Amino acid sequence: MAFDRLIENIVKMQNPTVAGLDPKLDYVPESIKTKCFEKYGKTLEGAAAALFEFNKALIDALYDIVPAVKPQAAYYEMYGWQGVKALCDTIAYAKSKGMFVITDGKRNDIGTTMEAYATAHLGHTDVAGESIDAFGADALTVNGYLGTDGIKPLAKICDSDDKGIFVLVKTSNPSSGELQDMKLETNESVYEHMGKMCEGWGEDLMGKHGYSAVGAVVGATYPEQLGEMRAKLPHTFFLVPGYGAQGGGADDVKNAFDENGLGAIINSSRGIMCAWKKQGLTEEDFAVAARKEAERMRDEIVGCIGKIKLG
Amino acid sequence: MAFDRLIENIVKMQNPTVAGLDPKLDYVPESIKTKCFEKYGKTLEGAAAALFEFNKALIDALYDIVPAVKPQAAYYEMYGWQGVKALCDTIAYAKSKGMFVITDGKRNDIGTTMEAYATAHLGHTDVAGESIDAFGADALTVNGYLGTDGIKPLAKICDSDDKGIFVLVKTSNPSSGELQDMKLETNESVYEHMGKMCEGWGEDLMGKHGYSAVGAVVGATYPEQLGEMRAKLPHTFFLVPGYGAQGGGADDVKNAFDENGLGAIINSSRGIMCAWKKQGLTEEDFAVAARKEAERMRDEIVGCIGKIKLG
Repeated sequence: MAFDRLIENIVKMQNPTVAGLDPKLDYVPESIKTKCFEKYGKTLEGAAAALFEFNKALIDALYDIVPAVKPQAAYYEMYGWQGVKALCDTIAYAKSKGMFVITDGKRNDIGTTMEAYATAHLGHTDVAGESIDAFGADALTVNGYLGTDGIKPLAKICDSDDKGIFVLVKTSNPSSGELQDMKLETNESVYEHMGKMCEGWGEDLMGKHGYSAVGAVVGATYPEQLGEMRAKLPHTFFLVPGYGAQGGGADDVKNAFDENGLGAIINSSRGIMCAWKKQGLTEEDFAVAARKEAERMRDEIVGCIGKIKLG
Repeated sequence: MAFDRLIENIVKMQNPTVAGLDPKLDYVPESIKTKCFEKYGKTLEGAAAALFEFNKALIDALYDIVPAVKPQAAYYEMYGWQGVKALCDTIAYAKSKGMFVITDGKRNDIGTTMEAYATAHLGHTDVAGESIDAFGADALTVNGYLGTDGIKPLAKICDSDDKGIFVLVKTSNPSSGELQDMKLETNESVYEHMGKMCEGWGEDLMGKHGYSAVGAVVGATYPEQLGEMRAKLPHTFFLVPGYGAQGGGADDVKNAFDENGLGAIINSSRGIMCAWKKQGLTEEDFAVAARKEAERMRDEIVGCIGKIKLG
């Protein structure tokens, strides 16, 4: 259960990275856009079709070397329900290629409402006795500001359906400290407190490789806190944003891993999607460039942490 | 700008309440479900059609006495992109009836990703030069755990398009204190700190009726903190959940208002949607019952706070 499948994917591919699929229309090559706009007009439907074509080509270029993808919900919602359909199609396509899918939605709410999010993104929706997967991702990012009431409703689905969540602990952005670094009177910081809650929430959801179904988001841009959290949260799997475009490098992220090279997956979104720019290629070569960048990132990180093995 | 339109709606109707549209399929009368399943099958499309029919009937029953609706995104996402289309249609229908629409999505992210959420829910999406409203709500609930980077990207759209946001400050659920009540070393609590940030974020987004475009969510279930926050955050408009089904009454929420009866809008979801149960009616009478409950709630609250007037 929990992140076992993800961990096994990582070990098999010797690659602890995830490709972020945050497709702005600006990133999509003209040839794809022209084709989709000709078919559907300059509409949300046309834009959504272009995003899905772009994602499909990226997935085709990556699925045998990268264990997971992380679509960012915001970029799909921006194109309305049509964009949300493209998110749905992207998840299904990535899963059909064997990839582990993390929907980055940072969802949060309480009780039955959080259950609805859990059902939507990870579980099965009941429609008058028919059980249907609405989105069907493997994991979802969530925000723990509301406490246990906002996390526990996810536990049942994590347990029964082999799914996981990543709770925001220390985010990668410059202003993350405004709240997260504040010291509590207990002398721990807000992010430490949140991290400790993650360990607690995961206690009854342990997988067989040492990590629970309740992971944490900890940014590559704060390498010191990353190492500190790795030591303090031994059963919490990390999703690490901030590598590449946001400034984090392999040296910064190596603190996220345990002695077996497990315990974390490092995300790169723009770095992979827009790799053709850095490689001096044309936008039509985006998929070839993405694969090359994914290989480079993998080799750089594995070069720092060594062979990844099950404990 | 800001919440001026909402405030003017409230004063005109002498009603500081919002009807939450959190439509579980269980709440929808059999007659609507049967019709929709006959047309679309027991599918996500069929379920979504039933939700929209239900919402339309509720809006028809409420629009001339209730100033705003608050659809909860989770209950639409549960029915996939088809459900999200029902959200979209619900927003458009409520707006066509003159209602102020608050999408309860508790969205949060940073930089360009938060801009994408702002564009999606409040702004206009650019598709190759065409400007299209993806969802077109008037306000969005957001989570401020990521600090200023997660809020500022919304400011531009609030300003240019007369929109608002509600930041989670003190939520209505039992476990909200696990993080929000923790004392910081500055001797203020996490929720007080978040509230203070809301006042700050709103400074450049002041409306003409004394409130900024940056509102706060403060639960009816914590009446003491509600009064405390009202006093400390004079320019922050409150969205108050927790009335009715969650246990808050009119006496609990009166602390949320200023001396003119402004400064807050009180939400009821289940209390209105499922009013027929309490009134001993059949489910087919849900719309009549909803209107009666909305009137009762309005009268109870206005009975406590008196005539609502612009300052």
